[in-house]
Amino acid sequence: MIKSRAAIAVAAGQPLEIAMVDVAPPKAGEVLVRLVATGVCHTDAYTLSGADPEGLFPAILGHEGAGIVEAVGPGVSSVKVGDHVIPLYTPECGKCKFCLSGKTNLCQAIRTTQGQGLMPDGTSRFSLDGKPLFHYMGTSTFSEYTVLPEISVAVINKEAPLDKVCLLGCGVTTGIGAVMNTAKVEPGSTVAIFGLGGIGLSAIIGAKMAGAGRIIGIDLNPDKFDMAKKLGATDCINPRDYSDPIQQVIVDLTDGGVDYSFECIGNVDVMRSALECCHKGWGESVIIGVAGAGQEIRTRPFQLVTGRVWRGSAFGGVKGRSQLPGIVEQYLKGEIPMDDFVTHTMGLEDINKAFDLMHEGKSIRSVILY
Amino acid sequence: MIKSRAAIAVAAGQPLEIAMVDVAPPKAGEVLVRLVATGVCHTDAYTLSGADPEGLFPAILGHEGAGIVEAVGPGVSSVKVGDHVIPLYTPECGKCKFCLSGKTNLCQAIRTTQGQGLMPDGTSRFSLDGKPLFHYMGTSTFSEYTVLPEISVAVINKEAPLDKVCLLGCGVTTGIGAVMNTAKVEPGSTVAIFGLGGIGLSAIIGAKMAGAGRIIGIDLNPDKFDMAKKLGATDCINPRDYSDPIQQVIVDLTDGGVDYSFECIGNVDVMRSALECCHKGWGESVIIGVAGAGQEIRTRPFQLVTGRVWRGSAFGGVKGRSQLPGIVEQYLKGEIPMDDFVTHTMGLEDINKAFDLMHEGKSIRSVILY
Repeated sequence: MIKSRAAIAVAAGQPLEIAMVDVAPPKAGEVLVRLVATGVCHTDAYTLSGADPEGLFPAILGHEGAGIVEAVGPGVSSVKVGDHVIPLYTPECGKCKFCLSGKTNLCQAIRTTQGQGLMPDGTSRFSLDGKPLFHYMGTSTFSEYTVLPEISVAVINKEAPLDKVCLLGCGVTTGIGAVMNTAKVEPGSTVAIFGLGGIGLSAIIGAKMAGAGRIIGIDLNPDKFDMAKKLGATDCINPRDYSDPIQQVIVDLTDGGVDYSFECIGNVDVMRSALECCHKGWGESVIIGVAGAGQEIRTRPFQLVTGRVWRGSAFGGVKGRSQLPGIVEQYLKGEIPMDDFVTHTMGLEDINKAFDLMHEGKSIRSVILY
Repeated sequence: MIKSRAAIAVAAGQPLEIAMVDVAPPKAGEVLVRLVATGVCHTDAYTLSGADPEGLFPAILGHEGAGIVEAVGPGVSSVKVGDHVIPLYTPECGKCKFCLSGKTNLCQAIRTTQGQGLMPDGTSRFSLDGKPLFHYMGTSTFSEYTVLPEISVAVINKEAPLDKVCLLGCGVTTGIGAVMNTAKVEPGSTVAIFGLGGIGLSAIIGAKMAGAGRIIGIDLNPDKFDMAKKLGATDCINPRDYSDPIQQVIVDLTDGGVDYSFECIGNVDVMRSALECCHKGWGESVIIGVAGAGQEIRTRPFQLVTGRVWRGSAFGGVKGRSQLPGIVEQYLKGEIPMDDFVTHTMGLEDINKAFDLMHEGKSIRSVILY
């Protein structure tokens, strides 16, 4: 049992509490990781708010980290002490029906226990004063030390700066992957990206990497347009500047609609606009954003019958263990200009400030440095 | 000007009136076709009912025919007198952005005038007592003679029986094509087909041709199950036999859901079931049925974010001029066992009986023989 500084989500809607928690050693098939950095993502805020129907408390949140393996449990063969790793909230066991399908990254090997806030053996490694704390998304990166299943870590190049590549544990990979893996955008394509937060900007990076000919960024906040253009957006438009529905504006701008669109917000009305701005006959829309519980998307089926395709993407369709190391290499080669995404860095003791900044609605990205 | 026996849709909701109409000779880029047979399809009934917001009257309906070219207008080079042809409500010009995309069969070359019930020059070739009648879907096969744009006919093998292959002008090709072209079902796949009318049965034929390992037919009317099984369905289920939602029943039956599903009815609630019975991670649902005006599909976006894909298909994604002749050849080789689909044949004078039979809701398919 080791002591670890951690931020505890004690209950929905309350600030995180910083405390020294107890972390049990890794059991068979598990690894102990000392985190060096973790991003603070909207999904953490969603769960902390209480809006997530699957949220459990008390828990240690956090899912966008990077760190170094400190110990491994019995039987661990693919990870060793000293390895630099990114925790994976979507594991890759390589053996389940999903991994073997070749069609999805949604490994289901530990889905049930992960959803219950527990390790695969049905117990927790975290406790405070002898009372267990729940894990979160299988990662719990808001603790200096965390325990992860072996199948939930991607071993990466040791040259990668962990305070930067932690962002590849969620947002940036999600955006790039949705473009490259899920939509498979071809060179010359016209692309629309709804929402220019971290995911949307990452989707722009992905569209640029894919060789898209035209990249249209859409946001209600024009302050985000400079960064979007710097990353490759060719057009930035604000729906408030038009009286027509935004899908009609985009169809008019693009001689019939875009080849691919991406919803990076989690708003079901925007998801509809993103579908309907696609070109008749072949336009494909990818939902990346996570909508509130119970919300539904809708459209006329004619939109699909006339050739549009509606799909979604989770973690960019990226298989964490086999593909994420390559994305880290692309970052190291300078192909993923994400360093400017980080607007604030702080110690764990200030983590509630990161949530406050996010609630102000600004385009911010905080990284916690341990 | 020639005289032609025709069935005129004089107004919404009224029986068709049989009359001798005047047919003007084909203009440049047009062909005159003498129809030998035509199917009567639900889309004709939908328009005749008045529910189709784009319906025009008086018009000559019909879009599932087969016939012989009697004359060609100036400049026609790809079709000659004596050719056997199937009229195409989805033309193939080979030159528009859509045809050139390689991604869709939805040629838009004559879309505007076709939607207005007119030939591409903006006029009609049909008249009665000097007053013009509207064309319908660019085909108007409820007339012994019809005029079609050259790009709206597929030249087929003269050995094909026209009273049979007329069904390839709409329903059968739509069902087979949705499976083979749109979904690209792979051998061994598990498939669910909702609605066992002509389109659904054709989708079963397509699934069988594609080598699907399991083909589940779903219908409220168990009388349709014998034919479905004869054509290749491995399971037939009636939602009324279960208390759970049908999507849950299918997910349970198939260890997680189907690889592909097809909605062949036009019911937006069934479209939702068809999507949600698909396997997490990769299941794809194809909407074939045409919903009523203004109706909308809906689901939780989580269904898509977790890997399901929602798409649609029109005329089975088949390019009429380049692909339909090959489908006729497949029929001639015995690969498309559709002869049993025709439950009634009658002369044009009895065409209203075909609509009456359809309204009784039975699994019928009428073919008019000229």
